Amino acid sequence: MSRNHHTIDILSRISGPEDLKGLSIRELDALGGEIRECLISTVSNTGGHIASNLGVVELTLALHRVFDTPRDRIIWDVGHQTYVHKILTGRKERLNTLRQMGGLSGFPKSEESEFDAFNTGHSSTSISAALGMARARDLVGEDYYVAAVIGDGALTGGMAFEALNDAGNARTNLLIILNDNGMSIARNVGGLSRYLSRLRTRPLYYKTRESIQSLIDRKLPKSGKHVRRFLHRIKAAMKSILVPSMFFEDLGFRYFGPIDGHNLRELITVLEHARTMKGPVLVHVCTLKGKGYKYAEEKPNVFHGIAPFEVETGELRTNGGESYSEVFGRKICELAQNNPDIAAITAAMPDGTGLNQFMESFPKRFFDVGIAEQHAVTFAAGLAKGGVRPVVAVYSTFLQRAYDQMLHDVALQNLHVVFAIDRAGVVGEDGETHQGIYDIAYIKTMPNFTFMAPASPRELEMMLEYAVLEHRGPIAVRYPRGAGSEIDALRQPIEYGKGLIARPGTDVTIIAVGSFLGRALKTAALLEAEGVSCEVINPRFIKPMDVKLLKQSIGKTGRVVVMEDGIVSGGFGSSVLELISQESIPARTLLLGLPDEVIPHGSRELIYRKYGLDPHSIKNRILGFIGVSGKKGGRSWARNASI
Amino acid sequence: MSRNHHTIDILSRISGPEDLKGLSIRELDALGGEIRECLISTVSNTGGHIASNLGVVELTLALHRVFDTPRDRIIWDVGHQTYVHKILTGRKERLNTLRQMGGLSGFPKSEESEFDAFNTGHSSTSISAALGMARARDLVGEDYYVAAVIGDGALTGGMAFEALNDAGNARTNLLIILNDNGMSIARNVGGLSRYLSRLRTRPLYYKTRESIQSLIDRKLPKSGKHVRRFLHRIKAAMKSILVPSMFFEDLGFRYFGPIDGHNLRELITVLEHARTMKGPVLVHVCTLKGKGYKYAEEKPNVFHGIAPFEVETGELRTNGGESYSEVFGRKICELAQNNPDIAAITAAMPDGTGLNQFMESFPKRFFDVGIAEQHAVTFAAGLAKGGVRPVVAVYSTFLQRAYDQMLHDVALQNLHVVFAIDRAGVVGEDGETHQGIYDIAYIKTMPNFTFMAPASPRELEMMLEYAVLEHRGPIAVRYPRGAGSEIDALRQPIEYGKGLIARPGTDVTIIAVGSFLGRALKTAALLEAEGVSCEVINPRFIKPMDVKLLKQSIGKTGRVVVMEDGIVSGGFGSSVLELISQESIPARTLLLGLPDEVIPHGSRELIYRKYGLDPHSIKNRILGFIGVSGKKGGRSWARNASI
Repeated sequence: MSRNHHTIDILSRISGPEDLKGLSIRELDALGGEIRECLISTVSNTGGHIASNLGVVELTLALHRVFDTPRDRIIWDVGHQTYVHKILTGRKERLNTLRQMGGLSGFPKSEESEFDAFNTGHSSTSISAALGMARARDLVGEDYYVAAVIGDGALTGGMAFEALNDAGNARTNLLIILNDNGMSIARNVGGLSRYLSRLRTRPLYYKTRESIQSLIDRKLPKSGKHVRRFLHRIKAAMKSILVPSMFFEDLGFRYFGPIDGHNLRELITVLEHARTMKGPVLVHVCTLKGKGYKYAEEKPNVFHGIAPFEVETGELRTNGGESYSEVFGRKICELAQNNPDIAAITAAMPDGTGLNQFMESFPKRFFDVGIAEQHAVTFAAGLAKGGVRPVVAVYSTFLQRAYDQMLHDVALQNLHVVFAIDRAGVVGEDGETHQGIYDIAYIKTMPNFTFMAPASPRELEMMLEYAVLEHRGPIAVRYPRGAGSEIDALRQPIEYGKGLIARPGTDVTIIAVGSFLGRALKTAALLEAEGVSCEVINPRFIKPMDVKLLKQSIGKTGRVVVMEDGIVSGGFGSSVLELISQESIPARTLLLGLPDEVIPHGSRELIYRKYGLDPHSIKNRILGFIGVSGKKGGRSWARNASI
Repeated sequence: MSRNHHTIDILSRISGPEDLKGLSIRELDALGGEIRECLISTVSNTGGHIASNLGVVELTLALHRVFDTPRDRIIWDVGHQTYVHKILTGRKERLNTLRQMGGLSGFPKSEESEFDAFNTGHSSTSISAALGMARARDLVGEDYYVAAVIGDGALTGGMAFEALNDAGNARTNLLIILNDNGMSIARNVGGLSRYLSRLRTRPLYYKTRESIQSLIDRKLPKSGKHVRRFLHRIKAAMKSILVPSMFFEDLGFRYFGPIDGHNLRELITVLEHARTMKGPVLVHVCTLKGKGYKYAEEKPNVFHGIAPFEVETGELRTNGGESYSEVFGRKICELAQNNPDIAAITAAMPDGTGLNQFMESFPKRFFDVGIAEQHAVTFAAGLAKGGVRPVVAVYSTFLQRAYDQMLHDVALQNLHVVFAIDRAGVVGEDGETHQGIYDIAYIKTMPNFTFMAPASPRELEMMLEYAVLEHRGPIAVRYPRGAGSEIDALRQPIEYGKGLIARPGTDVTIIAVGSFLGRALKTAALLEAEGVSCEVINPRFIKPMDVKLLKQSIGKTGRVVVMEDGIVSGGFGSSVLELISQESIPARTLLLGLPDEVIPHGSRELIYRKYGLDPHSIKNRILGFIGVSGKKGGRSWARNASI
């Protein structure tokens, strides 16, 4: 029997965490190997967050071995590192459905399993949630354990600190596992990171402490008043001197670590011990991101969240066209070349946002601030105030963290900060927590803001150039995940507040925001075959609206369809309704976008189809909309209508 | 010449910071006394943030003495402690206009003075802004100093930590002044606060350090290998041992402190020294909130932000009716009495939110998490997940900080967290940065959320009872600053998604959100005198809308006016437009609320008047709206109209 065969035997025997209790350390180690094979072979097909999961195999085994889940609660910060947890909690058979529509989520989901104690997705929430659950436990009078597992990257997010500050002063039993791999998505940054790496270099801490203690106790000459007083003081300060994390102890935590996060025996021993402690405890575990898969260890950032790849070579299987992120990255470098006052800011995502080239070419003007969107935005406001042109590149969903800073620090002061908002609209496989569908609704309400959406990669370039070089004041550009196609009709230069007619028509005005223009043009072609003539408008500017252009077109057709990759409620469509109301334009209206519900994971195109946003569905919805009043007869009726 | 007269002479000679340079320490001290008198007499008339300003008199004098403003930049966190700064930078003659419409802002405003380097209002932004300005200075090649002044309360806000983490690792020259008074608005909380108070008890740090150093250098017997190695280790670790703030040093800062913040000589000496340091420096200054005014020293929370008061007694001059905050506080205590699973959460504002009684009656269920709205919300989500009913009481403007947590942690998981949103709508004297006018627009877009607005204090009580006891899922209640009046028409119990007809009518439907109902009823009375019959609707629920009621009324009148204490763009009015669009209801519409611009400070009623939201202006706007098509003739026309 081969070793491989043997190890597969263990994993197949694990139907839940209780099956871990009887295994020896040697068997658990072997199980870890099997889990790694399972992870690599599955994620190479599904895509997903492979590197972080490879790093927490032993930690997850140890947690489920020591704690009594689901009675005890484990809260996984960010949550993309829960594949191992899912494998161990009855979901290994479904792992091949990961991140696909109707399949397993790539994040913890209470709806999916009782072992998922709290849903996560965005960074740095776990300590807050864990403290809430721990205090609820105390109030309700129960006695389960609550543990939060948080990476050193997530610890740079301000809300994690807010929670540490509160938890450190709480008398409740709470365990924080700091999963320290020196990385967020990219290599970690900041003072805290540097501090943690100093801690990591002191593995002999316990031994050193003991030997100094015994030295003081036994070996120093006991002579002289000064010496005795000095020794007394030193001994009193002993704990402060020698515990290497004053940082966490200052905040009120008992600190244990650093622990080798791939040594199961050590992990289990320390967790068993931590379980017996009263009050807030922090266990510092060092792991290697990508552990056990050569390519992921070498390039943990590339293997952070990855598309399907070849196991043997680590190469991506498919290679789409140039993504919007890449277009952004290329263009911003081009602009920076000729403008020394342009700076770029990322919150721990130089790769995802396309800023890696900028980082290399202009290191002095590149700022990775950590997973810290709030600081990123107000820091950019400070840069702008100091005469620099900052470009903040961030995913739509993560920008939600900086809502207040955009409004309070940038908008109210009317500062020239450029927001390059990536992953706007339906995000696809990352699902619920990562949808970029709210940005239109919340940014359009901020005073002084200009807001654009390109319909093609070339338009993104033009808009970036406009936003950075020509505009003054707060300005945002939103663009979707993945690659876009070129559209011929978009050659005119960007002019403040001006949209374009992408296709002239007479029966219906379709206003399509940004990347939905291509979809609108396809729909218009389908409708033409049905005898309906659509005027398709690319508004370019979500704010301010091109009132003149819209009035002209709507006045002509009397019917408006607004299409946007975002929620309908409070979206661009509702701005069009406000315009129609204010200007008393007679028109019937149809708003197409995402409904007011939680939008699940699945490929973007499947999600669009689910919500009737594929060209075929849109065609039918528009036919229905026209049909309400009869296609031609209704038109004259609509002309007389008023709002 | 009396001492009093003498001191007035100094202040009258100060027209700008340059006039401080030639003064002796004794004169500066005397000037400080005059400034305190000026503050107390002015703010007793205008109202405002008196206690924090009394605490920073010497610090402000020292900063302007040592630095060369406005060339050097001082960024005041929160910014309500800038009255002294305003007095010293040419605005003392206008101090009596403080917080009044057209007068001085209660916060730093670049538009007001070149000495105000960055506008603030919300907490914890100053380090981010300062770091941005410092790095901009380096990039642009200038050489001014940048200093942020931040309180220990503001330091509990996560974004301050994000900025410390970034700044600590930056090689740029940056000065952080930690103004430590042990308070945020209430007494400060959390592990960091406890840590800072430990630091404050070590004023002899420098002397201790020196004496131990010399002890090691000269007095210890130099014998034995172990002893020598031990000493070597101790000396190497000397800095770590004896610098009392490992916390800040761990993050990469040079730390100086604690310094007596009312000792001008010490302050000036340390600031002069800090100015010469390279890299990020943190100076820890201890001050007394309310210093020099007995009543403010005794009750710094009461004198934090205060209405006009009698100088001699410290008593408030006016006493309005029971405020919405007090109604909330009373009702939540009543509910908690009978329901042991109700918990209340505040972000450092037990007084302002009305939770002080709850804090005293139910200390185990009361959680002040510090100035940490993000953590407050996700912590509440954790409580809800653990079987507790959390009520988060927060000002509308500060809840902006937790936009992402409301959406990501509460809404997506459909958790029963109750948000009691105080100061919703126009805030009045606090102005631009504190307007609570965005909550409708951003909360209504969050899935699973229910959102209510009471029209009277009694309705607030009913809604709280409904939200806490009957409802399940995320739910928010918004109510304004100050006191409300009772309205007879509101006796029906709260029913999910159901609104009320507060006054029946036939010509126009007026939908008035929350506290604007009173205004709408007044307007309706005025319009009745003009022969216009208004049906006034109290929707009660911003979300979900009472579709049936609205359709009925709008179907009858064909004209809708929506009135809300919030921005029009994306507000409740735009939800009504979406409903009209979706249901194809024939109607003309008029949306009344705040426009898409920065709303300045001034009394609430003056602000409403400025934006045409007083009953008289509304009456005229509605007459104009009706008049577009002729009052009676237009009505039949509108009946035929469609959208």
